[in-house]
Amino acid sequence: MENIAKLIGDDLQRLEESIDKLLTTRVSFIREVVHHIIKSGGKRIRPILVILSAKMSGCADYRHIPYAAIVEFIHTATLLHDDVVDNAKTRRGSPTANTLWGNEPSVLVGDFLFSKSFDLMVSDQNSAVLAVMSRVTTALAEGEIMELLKTSDVETTEDDYYEIIANKTAVLLSAACEVGAILGGVDQDKRKALNRFGYHFGMAFQLTDDVLDYVSKGTTLGKDAGSDLKEGKITLPLIHALKSATPEERTVVTDSINKPRMTQKDYRKILNMIKRRGGIEYTVQASKNHAEQAMSFLNAFPPSPYRDAMTGLAQYVTKRET
Amino acid sequence: MENIAKLIGDDLQRLEESIDKLLTTRVSFIREVVHHIIKSGGKRIRPILVILSAKMSGCADYRHIPYAAIVEFIHTATLLHDDVVDNAKTRRGSPTANTLWGNEPSVLVGDFLFSKSFDLMVSDQNSAVLAVMSRVTTALAEGEIMELLKTSDVETTEDDYYEIIANKTAVLLSAACEVGAILGGVDQDKRKALNRFGYHFGMAFQLTDDVLDYVSKGTTLGKDAGSDLKEGKITLPLIHALKSATPEERTVVTDSINKPRMTQKDYRKILNMIKRRGGIEYTVQASKNHAEQAMSFLNAFPPSPYRDAMTGLAQYVTKRET
Repeated sequence: MENIAKLIGDDLQRLEESIDKLLTTRVSFIREVVHHIIKSGGKRIRPILVILSAKMSGCADYRHIPYAAIVEFIHTATLLHDDVVDNAKTRRGSPTANTLWGNEPSVLVGDFLFSKSFDLMVSDQNSAVLAVMSRVTTALAEGEIMELLKTSDVETTEDDYYEIIANKTAVLLSAACEVGAILGGVDQDKRKALNRFGYHFGMAFQLTDDVLDYVSKGTTLGKDAGSDLKEGKITLPLIHALKSATPEERTVVTDSINKPRMTQKDYRKILNMIKRRGGIEYTVQASKNHAEQAMSFLNAFPPSPYRDAMTGLAQYVTKRET
Repeated sequence: MENIAKLIGDDLQRLEESIDKLLTTRVSFIREVVHHIIKSGGKRIRPILVILSAKMSGCADYRHIPYAAIVEFIHTATLLHDDVVDNAKTRRGSPTANTLWGNEPSVLVGDFLFSKSFDLMVSDQNSAVLAVMSRVTTALAEGEIMELLKTSDVETTEDDYYEIIANKTAVLLSAACEVGAILGGVDQDKRKALNRFGYHFGMAFQLTDDVLDYVSKGTTLGKDAGSDLKEGKITLPLIHALKSATPEERTVVTDSINKPRMTQKDYRKILNMIKRRGGIEYTVQASKNHAEQAMSFLNAFPPSPYRDAMTGLAQYVTKRET
């Protein structure tokens, strides 16, 4: 990540300025809420993908910067709404907006960010970008709803899981890359390649996220380990473990998940079962496979420092600890 | 309203078909939630404005129908989110989506409707319509947030109130009319006139809504009378009454509003004070003034059954009981 900061430092600086500049509103409280979440140390993965993709695609000016900011706005809107849906208390180690101000502003400021993003894109009149982004925000909502419907459902299959994470996560990272390709003006093949890179990168990203939720230290991730399971989110480590679980092990999982509040002891039991049944390694491997697939699509582009940075990102994504 | 049903019956039929047809999603639960709220007997005021404006502007085909549906989708999205923000239990006499399924689906299905609306508009590639609609959804969110920030604030001024209702309500009705004008292909003056008609119509509409919340029978409105006040919404009847209220009357209002739950006795006291101080008549008159202003903008158009229907709507809006 430090190399990337060096390679596109100027763009990243402009990104932060653009985030501040584009966030015009007559309601200063909106800026306060957005500022709280958007300046809380997010990794800017999505804007970085826009920037690297645009530069790798030959974008020589800074037309991609506002779009990098917009992609981060849309991501931020989903975070605000997710935290309401998940009733999350902390994110990145800080209290969530819903904890500080209640659910209402989180819902409405999320709405503002969605609308503002479209408003900004419509003003720029790039219909190809608009088409990509409007399709994607619809898929994001569908993915979140699919996930909600599968809450605490121990019958969730690997296919269900992949459909959920494709829609709730991978499509936005895929769109970030595709938008960069469009702004850079590359041909359809290269555009498609960047779309696929972003998709597989996004899958690898979410798979790693779901591993980290089980194995990371609370302080590293900025939230408690096991949050997903405690919220009833059935992710691949558990889905895989359940495939070979004994009826007794399965009962422990079902009973714990159906309790109004899972105890730490229940969580430990399930975590040990997941580890015993290879759920962590399986998911780590799945993440690595997607990262490999992602990298293979970069061959559509000639070598460049930007391509190297994209490769580096795809390698980093499976190894990250936060 | 019966005359309008006769005049544009064919369009209204197509509108309902379009609502069903455009609501494509891979998640059938989304259709269920949207269906619950969108088929619950809404008056279709916004789609009717799109249709009448388009026809008055010379639209001879049915290109306005999908847009009429989209405007209703956006309105429905705001209702879903409003009911979460207001913690509303019933709407139009039925349980709200958040009562039936919880806050989470209401937030996410609202997001889906917003995104889907943009997705549909982007596919149609009418950049003038897109510009109007993306500006408006941003204003809607701002209006809702302004209202939230003024919750239980007895210092709310008439100016504050007008700014809130302009953004949370009038701009969408204004946009509905302007979209009709754009699709009908009229000149800038006529387009502007329809924008202004919709704006003042929207102001009259919301002013009447805020009167009805105080004076209608619960069964007519589909929710309890006094809901606004009980939710801490300070609307014009109270704002006006407070201008001439005695310190004792003001204290009653402040104390009641600051209680965790306002009693029916408190509510009666405040309602009587509002009536005594002329808050109801004042707001009714303000609504009539806006309706008059709305009608004056129709003079930009030659006489037609559609223009008569628009005039009729503006007359109806101040007299309606639901």
